[in-house]
Amino acid sequence: MAKARVFNMVKRFSGYPTEEDFQLVEQELKPLQDGEVLGKTLYLSVDPYMRIFVVDLPLGSPMIGEAVARIVESKNPAFKKGDIVYGAIGWKTAFVSDGKDLTKATHLPAGVPESLALGTLGMPGRTAYFGLLDICKPLKSGDVVLVNGAAGAVGNVVGQIAKIKGCVAIGYAGSDEKVEYLKSIGFDHAFNYKKVDLHESLSKAAPDGINAFYDNVGGDFADTVILYHMKQFGRVASCGSISQYNLKPGTGDKDLSVPKGARLQGVIVKQQLKIEGFIIYRFTDRYDEANSALAQWVKEGKLKWREHVTDGFENMPKAFIAMLKGANIGKAIVKNTE
Amino acid sequence: MAKARVFNMVKRFSGYPTEEDFQLVEQELKPLQDGEVLGKTLYLSVDPYMRIFVVDLPLGSPMIGEAVARIVESKNPAFKKGDIVYGAIGWKTAFVSDGKDLTKATHLPAGVPESLALGTLGMPGRTAYFGLLDICKPLKSGDVVLVNGAAGAVGNVVGQIAKIKGCVAIGYAGSDEKVEYLKSIGFDHAFNYKKVDLHESLSKAAPDGINAFYDNVGGDFADTVILYHMKQFGRVASCGSISQYNLKPGTGDKDLSVPKGARLQGVIVKQQLKIEGFIIYRFTDRYDEANSALAQWVKEGKLKWREHVTDGFENMPKAFIAMLKGANIGKAIVKNTE
Repeated sequence: MAKARVFNMVKRFSGYPTEEDFQLVEQELKPLQDGEVLGKTLYLSVDPYMRIFVVDLPLGSPMIGEAVARIVESKNPAFKKGDIVYGAIGWKTAFVSDGKDLTKATHLPAGVPESLALGTLGMPGRTAYFGLLDICKPLKSGDVVLVNGAAGAVGNVVGQIAKIKGCVAIGYAGSDEKVEYLKSIGFDHAFNYKKVDLHESLSKAAPDGINAFYDNVGGDFADTVILYHMKQFGRVASCGSISQYNLKPGTGDKDLSVPKGARLQGVIVKQQLKIEGFIIYRFTDRYDEANSALAQWVKEGKLKWREHVTDGFENMPKAFIAMLKGANIGKAIVKNTE
Repeated sequence: MAKARVFNMVKRFSGYPTEEDFQLVEQELKPLQDGEVLGKTLYLSVDPYMRIFVVDLPLGSPMIGEAVARIVESKNPAFKKGDIVYGAIGWKTAFVSDGKDLTKATHLPAGVPESLALGTLGMPGRTAYFGLLDICKPLKSGDVVLVNGAAGAVGNVVGQIAKIKGCVAIGYAGSDEKVEYLKSIGFDHAFNYKKVDLHESLSKAAPDGINAFYDNVGGDFADTVILYHMKQFGRVASCGSISQYNLKPGTGDKDLSVPKGARLQGVIVKQQLKIEGFIIYRFTDRYDEANSALAQWVKEGKLKWREHVTDGFENMPKAFIAMLKGANIGKAIVKNTE
């Protein structure tokens, strides 16, 4: 009877996870039923998202995560012994599965290690790909792309895809060695964020600003970039906020005592929110459409309106200030009574 | 010779604008050239955006703003005497224009005041329309729509369009009178934000969360909503951040001493940024596309990869923690060496 070693999560993380938060157990695997496979894990992935995606995981459950495995025995016609698969296997050395969550790693080029299906050719690679090319679209040649956590599994692919697409790639990472690595794979600019001032270094590297910011870090880093370095119509892909994951106390979403600004990016990711600033003038060529619809609704009485009218052009400043202080209900208007 | 009274901006605003920041001057208008019109201003608009859009306006310039005017004299074939026009006329009682910035207010239904072209049937109405239907798309019947500054020129239209589209409309405004107004025009829920706790009241009004948040206010209000009340795939239209416009010191974009979080929404609007959170699983049906592209790039040597391999399944927690602390370069991998 096959056995597996499994890491269960037995304590909620508080700050950085500790080894005591996990428990290694040995389990006997049940004999295969029709449609099932027995897999032996070859490579397991550890990723930042695990820190936060386990919030609702019942204590005592196996830790979640992707892995690459070899099929050892199969009663599922879709898999045969020896197949290399990847999927959300969890922290397990072996497993029985109905195969639904497993994908054959047929996309791997010859000669690369199978573990690549957990990295550059796996979830992190795909995350980089869609985050940069889809979330940050339209990405154009010459665009300036900024990525933090740049030496990580996702970040390094982001920078390289940026280069492939003819963009300028700027990366920040946490050691001089990482910076050297980034330069070696083609980043135009790379910085050790622990040694440089973000605002200063970015001002020099991208004096005209950033077109696409791929954010893995969140927190102050993201705030500074968004506040001071994005070009108009810049796109920010909020992929993660690892700077926030290990902060204490991790007391849950509804804890209003936790500083808000610092955690915003985390929620943007988790809830997959879209936040887009806009100024009406971008819609100039569609004003007729809006005018027609609004006028029609007013005609039909569906759209009510109200005005707060101040008489006298000389009262413009007063009206303006009053409006800013909220004195008006409906549209603040100044009537020229001369 | 026609004269105009004009308000120039003569001092930079600091905190709330004061009357001393403006100077009323009288000007003689030049005789009309071919192609020009002489307009008499009928209605002038004051809007929150003026507080911030004048940052780069040279001191001594006429204040900016939309107005409705009547054409008094025309040497431009596109306009005739008596035409009602609207446009970015500025704070002026009369003006000479080449007509390029003027639009005939032909969209107004019979019987409404011409000033409506500055409000519900003007820029604020159009802002509400596109902000809700385009920026917050896709808006579906039954969606819960939240708007702040709800009794203002934009906000009241947002709520009403939401109702027209079959949505639940929730509004916040700054007085009991405004709240009554909102209820009278069909808002399902309306609150005086000065009297209620935002988190509590919103939890009751929208226990399942918000689909579309039309933000005119920014600051703490926006932070609280985004952090605690948005549904997955919720959309936030950052239209304005009036809670921040009058804060001192208004020392410019690059002043790093100004608290960052509080000003984020302002930049999102001004730069028309798009911020979208995402989790890779939303792209499941496009994995093949990414796999192919990534594999091709690796084959061609365009896409480099690196791994940080930890041997031994028993080292999973250590590897995980180390990764969280940034020890890895490239993909953190645990190799099952058993």
